[in-house]
Amino acid sequence: MHRIDKLVGILEETGLDCCIVTAPVNFRYFLGFATVTKSYLVVSKSDFFVVTPELEYEEVKEKAGGVDVRAIGRKEKNVEVVAREVKKIGAKKIGVDGSDSYDSVQKLISALEANTVESISSKISELRAVKDADEVAKIARAVEIAEKALEKAVDIVDVGVSERDVAIELEYTMRKLGAENIAFDTIVASGPRAAIPHAKASDRKISPGDTVVVDLGCVCDGYVSDLTRTIVLSPVKEEVKRAVEAVAEAQEQAIKSIADGVKSSEVDGVARRVLASYGLERFFMHGLGHGIGLEVHELPRLSSLSDYVLRNGNVVTVEPGVYLPGSFGVRIEDDVVIDGGKAKKLSHFDTVVFK
Amino acid sequence: MHRIDKLVGILEETGLDCCIVTAPVNFRYFLGFATVTKSYLVVSKSDFFVVTPELEYEEVKEKAGGVDVRAIGRKEKNVEVVAREVKKIGAKKIGVDGSDSYDSVQKLISALEANTVESISSKISELRAVKDADEVAKIARAVEIAEKALEKAVDIVDVGVSERDVAIELEYTMRKLGAENIAFDTIVASGPRAAIPHAKASDRKISPGDTVVVDLGCVCDGYVSDLTRTIVLSPVKEEVKRAVEAVAEAQEQAIKSIADGVKSSEVDGVARRVLASYGLERFFMHGLGHGIGLEVHELPRLSSLSDYVLRNGNVVTVEPGVYLPGSFGVRIEDDVVIDGGKAKKLSHFDTVVFK
Repeated sequence: MHRIDKLVGILEETGLDCCIVTAPVNFRYFLGFATVTKSYLVVSKSDFFVVTPELEYEEVKEKAGGVDVRAIGRKEKNVEVVAREVKKIGAKKIGVDGSDSYDSVQKLISALEANTVESISSKISELRAVKDADEVAKIARAVEIAEKALEKAVDIVDVGVSERDVAIELEYTMRKLGAENIAFDTIVASGPRAAIPHAKASDRKISPGDTVVVDLGCVCDGYVSDLTRTIVLSPVKEEVKRAVEAVAEAQEQAIKSIADGVKSSEVDGVARRVLASYGLERFFMHGLGHGIGLEVHELPRLSSLSDYVLRNGNVVTVEPGVYLPGSFGVRIEDDVVIDGGKAKKLSHFDTVVFK
Repeated sequence: MHRIDKLVGILEETGLDCCIVTAPVNFRYFLGFATVTKSYLVVSKSDFFVVTPELEYEEVKEKAGGVDVRAIGRKEKNVEVVAREVKKIGAKKIGVDGSDSYDSVQKLISALEANTVESISSKISELRAVKDADEVAKIARAVEIAEKALEKAVDIVDVGVSERDVAIELEYTMRKLGAENIAFDTIVASGPRAAIPHAKASDRKISPGDTVVVDLGCVCDGYVSDLTRTIVLSPVKEEVKRAVEAVAEAQEQAIKSIADGVKSSEVDGVARRVLASYGLERFFMHGLGHGIGLEVHELPRLSSLSDYVLRNGNVVTVEPGVYLPGSFGVRIEDDVVIDGGKAKKLSHFDTVVFK
């Protein structure tokens, strides 16, 4: 339960008496399992317990191992039971989970007899930004499956095939290989649609000379992967070739610059400078990357606007791209972990794919 | 834009000057499209506009048709721009979207110079509980595809096949038939696992005499379906046959009792009384159903704890079940719309499947 010790650390740092974790993803982070019905993790400096509806009590009890689990009767109100249990420990300064909905948190606050209420979710996000070996192993497994789907993509992307059909096959491939889910809607964007960073796979049929951006990921044991390759179909235009080269170099240099102690805005700058040297910087209009873990977008962001200092245990995507509106787009995305001070790529698949 | 008129109705009812819709699902409900980056719909009694980050401005402008869209500059803070625009209309009593996260709403509130702040999300949920013809048509399309997947389930569920493999094939089937997504993780729960209402599809291999609960749904144009069938493999035990009969009768009677003006708790009671007549009521430990629409769980709930009065336009699942711990489970779930005063089933697939 070392993650709960870290929550105790937050209590000590903030001077709060206890905190109540309610967002499902945070609940899972601290306890290692998810619940179907809304449950509450209450942590004080000396103790912690879970409050869960009666319907799921037995299951939660089993999953939680030795943890103290308290049931909410079918006709009781969740927040009243939580407030009663919190009152027993005499907590008056209480941390709430601000990534949960406003209505839920307000309802909880109204039931509590608190002097001080403070959201601790940004502090939880900071904890979650630093992965332990077990988390990295789960992400690596999700990356491995995503890479196999990219191999499949290289196989099946071809003139006349629809983006949608490619996406469906790739999602099926990941599930068959053991992914518990896809991490997000698979992007397959071809031709001029590749110039839209968040294009959904459409019924467009892939054409000669297209760049085809394939952006996919899956979930293993709750943890996600997120990879992108651009498959370039012949005949290859000179400007496409140059853009691919630029993006690949931007990514390589950016990854090299990632290290424990480096500002994430600097890494973003490295990629941007490489693209600028090709005269393509203005066609790269999103951030360079983002943390991944239990969610697809976590801390830290790799962005000019971020003041995060990277550290060992961060797992981030590095995904430069250039998007020429109405013409074509190129993006390359890998997942890297900072380990022993330096960036290590979790994905190893060929960066550039001409077909 | 009649849905925005309904928001104006909420302003009139509550005496608020304006409201700001921020939860993606609610934004989509009122405007008919989703955005990738966080956007804000501001509605006053006389006017409405959208505030969206520069990066997505052009796309939003196009999707929103003639709507007034205002951009947030790359270096501006979202909430500050929204607050500035709200100030221009002189709004002091402001409704916020409490289904958005506590942190986001708090940040917005801090930026606003408001005298009164009130969450209007429960009122939005009530609006969303009553579907128009267009919404019902989208749900019906999602139901149609889900039914075809259930037909496929009857085909492929067999001794020796794993739950997981069945689930993957069914999800693939729905996608191939045009679903934009699956609505939730497909449940395939066999043998003693069928007695767990929310079981995930596991690696368990289906065995002779199993009941196999298949609970699935998909998304079409943003709207979901949610259906369940129980496939009963031979040899069929007498108690299983009796349970299937009880659940089918409970469902039939419950659907018959659904009408404009009837309390949802009464409908739940109808199903429970039928199960009681079989001595099985205590094995039915969840609510009878829930609304579906843009989300899988919406208002109204069909539950003994709900005081909702059903009305034309509600679309709900009706899903009685009996779960005998360690032994077997049976659930039957259909989607119905209240139309012209009465319940009409959107799904037509055979209720009971022996194989």
